[in-house]
Amino acid sequence: MNNLSTPTLLLNEEICKSNIRRLARKAEENGLDFKPHMKTHQSAEIGAWIKRAGAKAITVSSLKMARYFSDAGWRDIIVAFPAHPRWSAYIDQLSAQTNLGLLINNPVVAKTLGNKLSKGIKVYIEIDTGSGRSGLKSRQNEEIRHLIKTIGKFQKLKWAGFYSHPGHSYQSRSPQEIQEVHQSVVNQFKELRTDFESAENQLEICIGDTPCCSAGSSFDGIDSISPGNFVFYDVMQAEIGSCKISEIAVSVSCPVVDRYPERNELVIHGGAVHFSKEHIKWENTDCYGLVATAKKDRWQLNRPLPYLQSLSQEHGIIKCPSNSIEEYRVGDQLTVLPVHSCLTANLMGRYKLDEHRFIEQMPTHY
Amino acid sequence: MNNLSTPTLLLNEEICKSNIRRLARKAEENGLDFKPHMKTHQSAEIGAWIKRAGAKAITVSSLKMARYFSDAGWRDIIVAFPAHPRWSAYIDQLSAQTNLGLLINNPVVAKTLGNKLSKGIKVYIEIDTGSGRSGLKSRQNEEIRHLIKTIGKFQKLKWAGFYSHPGHSYQSRSPQEIQEVHQSVVNQFKELRTDFESAENQLEICIGDTPCCSAGSSFDGIDSISPGNFVFYDVMQAEIGSCKISEIAVSVSCPVVDRYPERNELVIHGGAVHFSKEHIKWENTDCYGLVATAKKDRWQLNRPLPYLQSLSQEHGIIKCPSNSIEEYRVGDQLTVLPVHSCLTANLMGRYKLDEHRFIEQMPTHY
Repeated sequence: MNNLSTPTLLLNEEICKSNIRRLARKAEENGLDFKPHMKTHQSAEIGAWIKRAGAKAITVSSLKMARYFSDAGWRDIIVAFPAHPRWSAYIDQLSAQTNLGLLINNPVVAKTLGNKLSKGIKVYIEIDTGSGRSGLKSRQNEEIRHLIKTIGKFQKLKWAGFYSHPGHSYQSRSPQEIQEVHQSVVNQFKELRTDFESAENQLEICIGDTPCCSAGSSFDGIDSISPGNFVFYDVMQAEIGSCKISEIAVSVSCPVVDRYPERNELVIHGGAVHFSKEHIKWENTDCYGLVATAKKDRWQLNRPLPYLQSLSQEHGIIKCPSNSIEEYRVGDQLTVLPVHSCLTANLMGRYKLDEHRFIEQMPTHY
Repeated sequence: MNNLSTPTLLLNEEICKSNIRRLARKAEENGLDFKPHMKTHQSAEIGAWIKRAGAKAITVSSLKMARYFSDAGWRDIIVAFPAHPRWSAYIDQLSAQTNLGLLINNPVVAKTLGNKLSKGIKVYIEIDTGSGRSGLKSRQNEEIRHLIKTIGKFQKLKWAGFYSHPGHSYQSRSPQEIQEVHQSVVNQFKELRTDFESAENQLEICIGDTPCCSAGSSFDGIDSISPGNFVFYDVMQAEIGSCKISEIAVSVSCPVVDRYPERNELVIHGGAVHFSKEHIKWENTDCYGLVATAKKDRWQLNRPLPYLQSLSQEHGIIKCPSNSIEEYRVGDQLTVLPVHSCLTANLMGRYKLDEHRFIEQMPTHY
């Protein structure tokens, strides 16, 4: 790790595999099907680690990603993004080799796809359990009933159940707060099941956020989970209360290229094209990452703790508290734990495991 | 443009070439060498358009990008990023085929590279003219003198002059405010030239931000300019006062996948992995892009104006003011002008010119 001269995304294989095993075990203990979301890592090789941990189905966020993982051998894939009426030709291509589940949230899309598809697919109705992004509210009984009826008119659409990404769990700041969100989600689905399940229509209810899946403690009435970020975690998940810093599996190794003791700042090679512009608040300013050091089998935060305070395209500014700048030199490598590992991984395109092993991601244009 | 079913980066070739010609002409009229920054487009083909407009030298922000454009035939390249002491082997490789200019901001780097390099390079000292990112302040006469002296001790380092990216111009909100920043930069370099130029040491002074190069009106004492963003411009540059909306050359075409009239919002396929998380403030909330329509030879903002209010990895939420949501349907394509075209282009990886022509960028791992 010392001879790097350009920003490099490091992956700690053991932490990542341990994160995967822990969630797979939690799913098993709670009688849940484990259908991890692949958007975080976008890598067939990490997908294989997930398969070895027992997953038989996965979740993705685009058709392109569905094709990539279908080509990698997965035969049961939920595309957890509102289906688009113009997707029909691509869906037919894909469902020739893989069992696809799509989110259909309105009757227009149901009709268009129902009329155009030549192969059958599973359909989930997305429920907006509180995030306010996409899907129907659980109290919109009439609209849900109408949508189910519309879906039911088409032979190629098989209504499978409900899907939700409770993204409002990201507002939490402790495991207790996550548990409150989680309980509200579980309660909403209990009512939906009562209203919409019948002997001839056994529903699958799938929820998909990393905070609830990591810190939630009861999954009564839930059938499957599709968290994504848990494979790596990140600084934001630690802030939310989903993980410990020691469970973060990725970091970005960045060269220190300049040093400004008079303002307690270092300049690193590591910018918005490496980390993304996602940030949290830290000491009343923006924070794009925390500086850590590799200790045995994990990363440990430096004390006092320098953090990534601002980013331009290739430059990053590290704020060093309490004159700790004296500990750093131009030419050093700094290891920075990213705020949002999904976006950082997406920008970096590959993972370095050790001096000789890299893992590639899905190509940008697949 | 109507049959797209996935987010696609559109490039208006005529606007882009017109932006390039306008700045090339401005450089010529002001007696400046035109050394455009390639980090915005990262494309050898757009580089060729720049060459045809008369540029003989270019600027880049990483050694990787220097290699890519060197391989594309450029023989005079400034790497406008603080040089790293571990770069020597790469620099030697590159300077075998291309005349390189590097930024060296401190004596440690000068000594390390001066001792290690086997081929000669040009050296610029970076001046922090107000952005507070990297480089020496223009008033740090003693440190500058010491650095020049250190550089002068090494046969492989040829001190060429000063470089600055006046990034504080991005705080401007009108051409007048940009002009004030620009004038302060010009004044700082006048003093530096007086202090450091001699008969045997003719200096090159190069400045590199798009706002000052677009809206600045006197370049007295400046020798060369290296703006980057001007090839595309974007919503942020229009806000700053560097360009008109009609001069923006890129947009992202995004399918409308869901529709929420009760909250005046549309969901598009177009998220943080397409636009980046860079945003401006708009109606007291965040704005990641503005919705426009292709009119003849340019994009024109829709009225009333919907804007991209929030992003997750693949989803974008469009806020439609004054109930204008009635004009949009699921299945439509929305054209969104990005807030920061450099980061959007970096994420998208390629440009669509028309139904049959795409331009590729430098591969992520070059």
